[in-house]
Amino acid sequence: MISKTPMTPYYAVIFTSLRTEDNNGYELAAKRMTDLAQKQIGFLGVESARSEVGITISYWESLEAIQNWRNNEEHRNVQKSGKKKWYASYKIRICKVERDYEF
Amino acid sequence: MISKTPMTPYYAVIFTSLRTEDNNGYELAAKRMTDLAQKQIGFLGVESARSEVGITISYWESLEAIQNWRNNEEHRNVQKSGKKKWYASYKIRICKVERDYEF
Repeated sequence: MISKTPMTPYYAVIFTSLRTEDNNGYELAAKRMTDLAQKQIGFLGVESARSEVGITISYWESLEAIQNWRNNEEHRNVQKSGKKKWYASYKIRICKVERDYEF
Repeated sequence: MISKTPMTPYYAVIFTSLRTEDNNGYELAAKRMTDLAQKQIGFLGVESARSEVGITISYWESLEAIQNWRNNEEHRNVQKSGKKKWYASYKIRICKVERDYEF
């Protein structure tokens, strides 16, 4: 779904990734992280799609909320598994959403 | 591919969309717009994936470059076709990329 985010400004974390062929535990961890993110203070929404690359964008009220999520203990453990097993490479971009409009 | 963007800050346009069932001309227009975007001054890269939603992120040097691309005449015509035929809804978010890191 397209996230129903509030009035700008707010923040976005763009996570673009290339997967390995190791799927062991991936789907479960991805679902758990989406569920856990939604429980964090300041979480606004998430959008995700995968073709050649995977793109997951999470939206947040503040940079502090992003920092807290990044440092969440369960999330940190999954980040380690991601580097070890599931991702060949990824890039994370922390953004301030300055304007938005929709159709 | 994951875009090789320069040092922050730079800008991102996040385009999240839900398609209609009308595919007539869509693939050709999407490819043409990607090619045309790459020729614009200030273009830095593009990442795209589609599952339930489609996500296309283009990266730009400046807000001015984004504005010029938005107003490009051929692009404007395709935007009209997009609203008329290909997209049930979409959301566009203009972002300043403040930090990034990769693995």
